[in-house]
Amino acid sequence: MKATVFHGARDVRVETVPDPVRKAPTDVLVRVVNAAICGSDLWPYRGIAQWTPGSRLGHEFTGIVEEAGSAVTGFKKGDYVAAPFSYADGSCSFCREGLPTSCPSVGFWGGAINDGGQGQFVRVPFADATLVAIPDAIRADAAKRVAVLALTDVMGTGFHGAKTAGTEAGGDVVIVGDGAVGLCAVIAARYLGAERIVCVGHHAGRLGIAAKFGATHTIDSHEPDAVDRIKEATNGGARSVVEAVGVQSTLDLALEVVRDGGTVSFVGVPAGMEKLAFRRLFSGNVALRGALAPVRTYLPELMEALSAGKIDPSPVFTSNLPLDGSPDGYRAMDQRETIKVCLDVSSP
Amino acid sequence: MKATVFHGARDVRVETVPDPVRKAPTDVLVRVVNAAICGSDLWPYRGIAQWTPGSRLGHEFTGIVEEAGSAVTGFKKGDYVAAPFSYADGSCSFCREGLPTSCPSVGFWGGAINDGGQGQFVRVPFADATLVAIPDAIRADAAKRVAVLALTDVMGTGFHGAKTAGTEAGGDVVIVGDGAVGLCAVIAARYLGAERIVCVGHHAGRLGIAAKFGATHTIDSHEPDAVDRIKEATNGGARSVVEAVGVQSTLDLALEVVRDGGTVSFVGVPAGMEKLAFRRLFSGNVALRGALAPVRTYLPELMEALSAGKIDPSPVFTSNLPLDGSPDGYRAMDQRETIKVCLDVSSP
Repeated sequence: MKATVFHGARDVRVETVPDPVRKAPTDVLVRVVNAAICGSDLWPYRGIAQWTPGSRLGHEFTGIVEEAGSAVTGFKKGDYVAAPFSYADGSCSFCREGLPTSCPSVGFWGGAINDGGQGQFVRVPFADATLVAIPDAIRADAAKRVAVLALTDVMGTGFHGAKTAGTEAGGDVVIVGDGAVGLCAVIAARYLGAERIVCVGHHAGRLGIAAKFGATHTIDSHEPDAVDRIKEATNGGARSVVEAVGVQSTLDLALEVVRDGGTVSFVGVPAGMEKLAFRRLFSGNVALRGALAPVRTYLPELMEALSAGKIDPSPVFTSNLPLDGSPDGYRAMDQRETIKVCLDVSSP
Repeated sequence: MKATVFHGARDVRVETVPDPVRKAPTDVLVRVVNAAICGSDLWPYRGIAQWTPGSRLGHEFTGIVEEAGSAVTGFKKGDYVAAPFSYADGSCSFCREGLPTSCPSVGFWGGAINDGGQGQFVRVPFADATLVAIPDAIRADAAKRVAVLALTDVMGTGFHGAKTAGTEAGGDVVIVGDGAVGLCAVIAARYLGAERIVCVGHHAGRLGIAAKFGATHTIDSHEPDAVDRIKEATNGGARSVVEAVGVQSTLDLALEVVRDGGTVSFVGVPAGMEKLAFRRLFSGNVALRGALAPVRTYLPELMEALSAGKIDPSPVFTSNLPLDGSPDGYRAMDQRETIKVCLDVSSP
């Protein structure tokens, strides 16, 4: 099959690799329909995260069940499915309480061991616990097929950020970051009924999308009075702040604009967070919550919300490319020419 | 009047200073009955925190109302009262939601501006909002008069730690630290109904008190297998961890023994916390909560619990000294000869 393979900084290629085979009776083979390129894929691409050459890429995909192992009860050949960015056994205490990212058997797509989403096929372990069926109505709707791809990571991650930051109906939320996750956090905050939703970024186009998604205030973080404007918009600070970038400056900004007693939840892989203002946390009774999203837990609810037209994250995908265009997709995201790339790998 | 005054590292003296006078109609003058020396008083004493010579010391006291301003409605001369370690206006949005430590008018006893608790008299601003009446039954009981002094800081702080760490009936709590605050967190965890309460320290005598207070496991942090033993006691990690020391090594330990999805609440003034394992927080969905205790909020509940015999923090006071003995009390606490000193300043 063909798959996207990491070779080094700014060197990813679509190559022929061995076809995956089922290894356990709980495995499913999925033929990928759509895959996405994630902001976190850019960390190895930019050489910030050290990856082994030969690693597979991609952790967001939807597809069609091609083969189901003998122990798989929930899926059969031909089913249209979404996979969260990690798999888990579904039976441990963490899985049972909705935190599958902490399952002892947790695994992530791509890397040296697992198939990546940005390829033609993926072997899915613990398929019954991992995959979620996509309703026929979404399968029949080209725009919703793109939207559902967002549920495999960025939409679930934005939702987890909004939830763990304590977003409440009628409350205030500040979302720091206007990338795909930040934008999805805006959708989530609106879905959860937040009254004031402040999105902070520095790309006019992306902030425009944030406004369409329901942000009541969009603020350019490069403006010298950005902090003052955020505080003004939130009557002195927000109880709930989602940090959706993962670097020091955005963490610092988040801690400046959180209201005392509130929560900053950071949902992106930390990349260059080094220092924490411990005294700010202490004096202000602020909680800093790390939040690797247990996307599988949220998929059913978000799938229903998508079906019902309550959320539509499809605008975060600003490019569609064939699988062969994957390297160009990385380049375009790295250069910020596009927010997020949807790869059209095969027909649904 | 006489008061304890800071002159420099390991140099505190009891001196004659000007008698305080009321400055606002909402002020009360309190004649101090008991005052305590706090672990955090040792930061300036040890030269770790830089204080201005001449600063007053002490932020924990009970006393008798000597004079009440014309606007004070809740207290009159002769009332026996407890003061939380900070005062606040009682009317701002933070005060109304139970976070008076974030009040714009917040002030702390001692320092360059306010009277310290370790003296004969204290001017108490916003007296109606700040002070809490002590029931007659406690006034008449010498042991409970000592116990109630703990409610002005360490008991409320331990309680806040246990609450903000998410302690639940039937749950697991790890308390890192066997000082007065850690010991009070043990009392709080038991009061809140925690099933397994693990106290981690390295003073056999203090851990013995922890066991009397309800710790189901006491573990010496200097043992090489301490982390393993804590995890064993909590089935792999506790959802709720109270960090009650405030230094790097105890923070690191707390993050090692918290269960994924759990909370570490740190209740002591951070003194030498520099680094945070951001990836641990992220991957494990762990929250780090800073927790300067809004003691005033908890005083009524804790006063009732003390009256009802449900809590008794008096054993954290291992020395009683007259006000003149204050410098010796500092020396003894610095040398770890005693856990916490109660100063007997005047009769109740």
